[in-house]
Amino acid sequence: MKHQDLQIGEDGGLRHFLSISGLNTELLVRILDTAESFTGVTEQAIKKVPLLRGKTIVNLFFEASTRTRTTFELAAKRLSADVLNINITQSATAKGESLLDTLRNLEAMHVDMFVIRHADSGAAHFIASNVAPHISIINAGDGRHSHPTQAMLDMFTIRRVKGPDFGRLRVAIVGDIMHSRVARSQIHALNLLNTGDVRIVAPKTLIPANSEALGVHVFHDLREGIRDADVIIMLRLQHERMLGALLPSEHEYYELFGVTEEKLTAAKPDVTIMHPGPINRGVEMDSEVADGSRSVILEQVSHGIAVRMAVMSMAMHRREETPE
Amino acid sequence: MKHQDLQIGEDGGLRHFLSISGLNTELLVRILDTAESFTGVTEQAIKKVPLLRGKTIVNLFFEASTRTRTTFELAAKRLSADVLNINITQSATAKGESLLDTLRNLEAMHVDMFVIRHADSGAAHFIASNVAPHISIINAGDGRHSHPTQAMLDMFTIRRVKGPDFGRLRVAIVGDIMHSRVARSQIHALNLLNTGDVRIVAPKTLIPANSEALGVHVFHDLREGIRDADVIIMLRLQHERMLGALLPSEHEYYELFGVTEEKLTAAKPDVTIMHPGPINRGVEMDSEVADGSRSVILEQVSHGIAVRMAVMSMAMHRREETPE
Amino acid sequence: MKHQDLQIGEDGGLRHFLSISGLNTELLVRILDTAESFTGVTEQAIKKVPLLRGKTIVNLFFEASTRTRTTFELAAKRLSADVLNINITQSATAKGESLLDTLRNLEAMHVDMFVIRHADSGAAHFIASNVAPHISIINAGDGRHSHPTQAMLDMFTIRRVKGPDFGRLRVAIVGDIMHSRVARSQIHALNLLNTGDVRIVAPKTLIPANSEALGVHVFHDLREGIRDADVIIMLRLQHERMLGALLPSEHEYYELFGVTEEKLTAAKPDVTIMHPGPINRGVEMDSEVADGSRSVILEQVSHGIAVRMAVMSMAMHRREETPE
Repeated sequence: MKHQDLQIGEDGGLRHFLSISGLNTELLVRILDTAESFTGVTEQAIKKVPLLRGKTIVNLFFEASTRTRTTFELAAKRLSADVLNINITQSATAKGESLLDTLRNLEAMHVDMFVIRHADSGAAHFIASNVAPHISIINAGDGRHSHPTQAMLDMFTIRRVKGPDFGRLRVAIVGDIMHSRVARSQIHALNLLNTGDVRIVAPKTLIPANSEALGVHVFHDLREGIRDADVIIMLRLQHERMLGALLPSEHEYYELFGVTEEKLTAAKPDVTIMHPGPINRGVEMDSEVADGSRSVILEQVSHGIAVRMAVMSMAMHRREETPE
Repeated sequence: MKHQDLQIGEDGGLRHFLSISGLNTELLVRILDTAESFTGVTEQAIKKVPLLRGKTIVNLFFEASTRTRTTFELAAKRLSADVLNINITQSATAKGESLLDTLRNLEAMHVDMFVIRHADSGAAHFIASNVAPHISIINAGDGRHSHPTQAMLDMFTIRRVKGPDFGRLRVAIVGDIMHSRVARSQIHALNLLNTGDVRIVAPKTLIPANSEALGVHVFHDLREGIRDADVIIMLRLQHERMLGALLPSEHEYYELFGVTEEKLTAAKPDVTIMHPGPINRGVEMDSEVADGSRSVILEQVSHGIAVRMAVMSMAMHRREETPE
Repeated sequence: MKHQDLQIGEDGGLRHFLSISGLNTELLVRILDTAESFTGVTEQAIKKVPLLRGKTIVNLFFEASTRTRTTFELAAKRLSADVLNINITQSATAKGESLLDTLRNLEAMHVDMFVIRHADSGAAHFIASNVAPHISIINAGDGRHSHPTQAMLDMFTIRRVKGPDFGRLRVAIVGDIMHSRVARSQIHALNLLNTGDVRIVAPKTLIPANSEALGVHVFHDLREGIRDADVIIMLRLQHERMLGALLPSEHEYYELFGVTEEKLTAAKPDVTIMHPGPINRGVEMDSEVADGSRSVILEQVSHGIAVRMAVMSMAMHRREETPE
């Protein structure tokens, strides 16, 4: 509710993009439709549209991520915006400047949008709560909380492959649900789009306590969890975070939860294989699966540009304009 | 005089912008007027003017400063220039290339302007003395010597708040005058604009020996120094530089020289509060003062873009053109 | 042969630019002619041509080099392309992503060209062998193997100074031939352009075993090697790589192979002095030689922009278009 207030403008349109939770189905569909209109742009010879010409977008990354930063930078440039990359870990905070002072300073430079990545859950909401009225905030991942553009590119990818009726789909999310901001956002989005059956599949140590309350079915056995699935979304195993404490070894994880062609026989024959990348081959899945004909992992990356273009242009109140 | 030769072109216009010292009142006023014409640009929906389209500006930073680099990069992009950021500490000099060889190489790439930040006093002048005729140098801070764009944005801010007649103003600069390139440039600018009373206020250990010669009044007591002041400009306390040797503690500094609402009663009721940022809250001043209605600290940041656009476009001999 | 397949498109034009070896004389001359058409662009007041507007070029540097990255970035911007700089050492590979996965991801973002620098010989060829059909690869230096844009800017510089007939020229390459990707590319290019006499001059420890097979004459005495030379190309001595094992000291190297005005009397009076930079003054040559009237070291840098513009625009299949 608080998030809804923050994310939705007075005109009912997108103002910030912080988390899937707080948005409604209609807005999600509008994001997907807008992204659809941009897929043509990214595939044309001339890839730019002038929607955000003269606008300044700052990638404000408190946590390094070349991959995510690159997709936002590309999306912004294809909208003809100017982009500044600020890696705040090496910057103002080193001089002891508080986050809010940093924010006020950037606001005063008349920038139009911040794309925020931060290790603390809630950082993007905190910034959106405190930012000047003319600035939009896009959450590019905050702690374990939310990674909404990743979730939306996943929804976009599913819709492209399976069609718009999510009601008839069984989607299984496999991996470290506990620590995954991606999973949290995916579950919210799948539920808002009325997905028929949303499942999470992981060892007990990697499933949060109250998961059923999220509106999902919980499985601790891979074959059971992916049985007759239309879509399997794997999550990335964060080596550094888990080994030792929560998991005996990568090898054992692979034995039990790594997706192979053999285990995939439990799913539907035309099951779609997804992963946010980067893949740990031989851990989350076999290369045969990752590179197989049912994998749309690289399509996800492509769609990430279109979805980010959609969210950025919508948050800048340019919904009415569509690329020629 | 030497500086004057370097900074002023044959047509009497700005050629390099290295230090306030060496410039004249008329040129300072012209910079302020040009900046005025750009404030509209930075506040419009479409923020770019094509004055420097096709020009290449290199931010050549021998000393890291995301904040300063960002303001120059924004200013350059709003003039439609292409910008390259080169952090020279991680670069050519690591291969043993001399400064002059680095310079010759960049010249040969047909760039049009270098924005220089360097830890050595005089670095910008040295470079300007040795650069090819078609290239302009902007000093973005050299050692303890000069930070002229900061001084000009301060003058611009004062003029906007207090009007163009500096003769009736009492301006107090409070803090570490000794180590401050900002203070040195501010004093020169205030004197060139014929400010009625320029004061510096600091503990004896932070005031250079021959300060009266700069044309200022020296105070070691805060209340005395800011009495009836129209403008108070605080300087940033550089922790790393001073603690131990020159100052007993931040706390003691705050007790004696930290600006609070209570101490401010000594100044004029409509006193304007300035600080180049980033602020050390609870050291140089209270948050109540920093965020109060008389503070123009964030306006300074905004004006920094307009002033840098002015200096950059003037140095590129585009004075005659004004943004539509 | 394998390289030829990779580098030449079905239309006989340049598809990738990986190494001089595998190209033919006619294509080399076409590169030089195209670069010639761009030298005007880089010297005009407005330096941009719209040849690559809307195209995205990624500088994918697995080995840091501000200098080389800057020349490619400038060349790309003058062709109006969007440029992304990705320093892969601090990025995806740190997360354990394989090179091919990184590549597939960037492909999926619909970029048009990768400029690759990598410490491993053959990296650019490997990437070109595996990249999607719509993407061009430019080799910006791979291990000890190849640095073809450097070689072409050297050829361009020689042609500008000495005219198009390489057959009447004696060119001596002096320095660490053994470890130099630059030397290898220069030798191939000089031979393809039918240079009359190509010589390499170095201590025995810095000459590869089978050098004569490259079509060059080998000299271990500087004065002998540069006798009646029209062009002397010095190579950079890599301190870190050689001292101790292969060379007794920089001083001794300078005594024997450092080029001085005195030793230059062995060459032709109008000998042209070249070096890829950055120079170690007092090691590879005297400052008197480096800065003398016969040195074209800085012209090499300028020509580097034009040559990179040529290669980039040709590889993007825009040969037919010429800048207005």
